[in-house]
Amino acid sequence: MTGVITRATPVPSPGLPGRVRIYEVGPRDGLQNEQGVIPVEVKEEFVRRLLAAGLPVVEATSFVHPRWVPQLADAAELMSRLGDDGRDCPVLVPNERGLDRALELGLRHVAVFASATETFAAKNLNRTLETQLEMFAPTVERALAAGIDVRAYVSMCFGDPWEGPVAPEQVVEVGQRLLAMGATELSLGDTIGVGTAGDTRRLIEVVGRDIDRSLLAGHFHDTYGQALANILVALQHGISVIDSAAGGLGGCPYAAGASGNVATEDVVYMLNGMGVDCGVDINALVAASTQIFDHLNREPASRTMRALLAKHHNVI
Amino acid sequence: MTGVITRATPVPSPGLPGRVRIYEVGPRDGLQNEQGVIPVEVKEEFVRRLLAAGLPVVEATSFVHPRWVPQLADAAELMSRLGDDGRDCPVLVPNERGLDRALELGLRHVAVFASATETFAAKNLNRTLETQLEMFAPTVERALAAGIDVRAYVSMCFGDPWEGPVAPEQVVEVGQRLLAMGATELSLGDTIGVGTAGDTRRLIEVVGRDIDRSLLAGHFHDTYGQALANILVALQHGISVIDSAAGGLGGCPYAAGASGNVATEDVVYMLNGMGVDCGVDINALVAASTQIFDHLNREPASRTMRALLAKHHNVI
Repeated sequence: MTGVITRATPVPSPGLPGRVRIYEVGPRDGLQNEQGVIPVEVKEEFVRRLLAAGLPVVEATSFVHPRWVPQLADAAELMSRLGDDGRDCPVLVPNERGLDRALELGLRHVAVFASATETFAAKNLNRTLETQLEMFAPTVERALAAGIDVRAYVSMCFGDPWEGPVAPEQVVEVGQRLLAMGATELSLGDTIGVGTAGDTRRLIEVVGRDIDRSLLAGHFHDTYGQALANILVALQHGISVIDSAAGGLGGCPYAAGASGNVATEDVVYMLNGMGVDCGVDINALVAASTQIFDHLNREPASRTMRALLAKHHNVI
Repeated sequence: MTGVITRATPVPSPGLPGRVRIYEVGPRDGLQNEQGVIPVEVKEEFVRRLLAAGLPVVEATSFVHPRWVPQLADAAELMSRLGDDGRDCPVLVPNERGLDRALELGLRHVAVFASATETFAAKNLNRTLETQLEMFAPTVERALAAGIDVRAYVSMCFGDPWEGPVAPEQVVEVGQRLLAMGATELSLGDTIGVGTAGDTRRLIEVVGRDIDRSLLAGHFHDTYGQALANILVALQHGISVIDSAAGGLGGCPYAAGASGNVATEDVVYMLNGMGVDCGVDINALVAASTQIFDHLNREPASRTMRALLAKHHNVI
C-alpha cells in the first residue's frame, strides 16, 4: 500500500478563471537570487524541461551587466544554445544595450523591470521614479518597432523595505506610464513578499479601475507564506496570469533567510484542485526542479515538490 | 535604515468574518509529531506564553497512553503545573480513561479525535468507523454530565493515504453522529494536507447544508503549502474558528519531510492584513515559538516567523 493520493476530478470553482497562464520566472528571477553559478548546459536543460512540462512562458535569463548579476553572465550563450526553441522565451533587458543583445539573437519577447517606489528606483537602478521611466521609453519604443512584445514588471507594489506600505495609486501611476509607452503586460510584484490577501484585493480593485485586468499579472513572493492566498484572491478578482518559479527558486535579497518566488508546483497543485486549467504536467515540472536543486545542493522551498518527492519515495 | 515594514491599517475585507478565533494546537498536535521530548517546565512556559500572547484557546496536551505518544507522557504533570491558569486549556482524551484523568485535574474542556475514513479508524484506533463512535459515546456523555465541553476532531476529511479522496458526505455522516452525542464543536481536519481551495469550498458547502457553520472549525496542514489559501476560502464560506500551531510545529507522519500544521504566525499575519481581528500579539507569539524551536534545535516551518526574525536581525 503506497501513500499515493489520487485527487478526485475537480469541479471548476465559481468566480475563478477557467484557465490561468503561468509565467515561469525560475531561470531568471529565481537563479539571479541563488548563491552559486549553474553551468550553462544545466540551465539549457532546465529551460527545455520547463517548456516540455507544459509551461506556456519561461523567462529564460536577463541581459543585465554581469557585474550586477554574475549568475546570469551566460545569457547570450544560453539563448544561442536554446536556438529556435528559446525564441519565444522572454528575457529581461534593463536598458537599450540589453535590447540590442536580444535583437541580435532574434528574440521575440523582452521584459523591463521598473520600481513603484522612489527609494527602490534609486537603490536598484540609481534613478528617480521619473528617470527610470525615461530610460525605458526608448527601449520599449525600439522593441515595439522591431515587432517585439514588452512585459513591464512593476516591483515593490505592496511595500518596500525603506518606505513601508506603497499606495496602490502609485502603482497605477507607474503602470499607466509603462502602458502608454507600449508595454503589453504589467506584472505587479510583491517583491519582498509582505502583502496579504487584503492588500492584494485592495491593489487590484484600485488598479483595476484604470487598467484593464487582462493586462495584469500577479507576481508574489512567499516571504511571509502568503503567496498562494494572494494568488487565490487575485484570481477571484479577475487576474489570470500568475508569475512563479519552479521549486520556489530564488530568495529575497532584502530579507535574509526568507523564501523566494512562489513555487510553480504549489500554484499548479492549487489550480488543479480548483479545476482551473494551466496545462502543466506537475510530475515533469518536479523532475525539472529536482535537477536544478540538486545542482544548488539545497532543499527546494516548494512544499508541494517536497511532498510529491516524499510520496514517491515512501511506502507506508 | 532598517528593513522594518509598517503595514497600513487594514480595511476589513468584505465577505469575511470580523473576528476569528484561533485554536492553538502547537503544544498538543504540534509536539506529538516532533522528534524528541521537551522538558515539562519548557512546555509549561510555552503554554503560558501562548496564552499571554492573546491566543484565546491553547490545547495543551493529550491524555493518550505514553506508549503511543511518549512526547506527551507528562500530560498530568503539565496540567498540574499550569494549575488554574491551564483550567480552560482543552486536552485531548482518546477514551474514558483519558477523561477520568481530565476530571481528576478539574479541567473544563476536552477533545476527542475521530476519523472520517474506515482505514484511518483502523490504523489509528484499531476500530471501525462505527466502533470508534461507540467508543466516544460514553466519553462525551460523561464529560457533558460533568459540565465539560467536548470538541470533536474529524480527521482525514479531504483524503487519506490509503483510500484517496474522501467524499464530503462521509464527513457529514461522522460529524452529525458526533454532534448528536453532544460534541460542541467539530474541527474538520486535512490531516495529511492534500486539500486545495477547491476541496475546501466543496467540503464546507456540503457539510454546511446539514451542520450549522458556527459549529465548525478548519484544521489545515501545510504539507502541500495550501493551508493559508484553504483557510481564506473557509473564512469566505462562513467558518470563523481556525486551528493552527505556533511556528508550524509538527509534521505529517504519513509524508516524510512534509510540513505540519499551518503556522499560527502565518495565519495571524494574513488575518491582520485583512482587517480580521484575532487578538494575538504576533511578536509575543514569535518569542514563544522561538523558545520551543530552540529546544527542538530546528528551523521553524513558519515563513512569517522566519521573516520577522530575519527583519529584526538585519539592517539593510
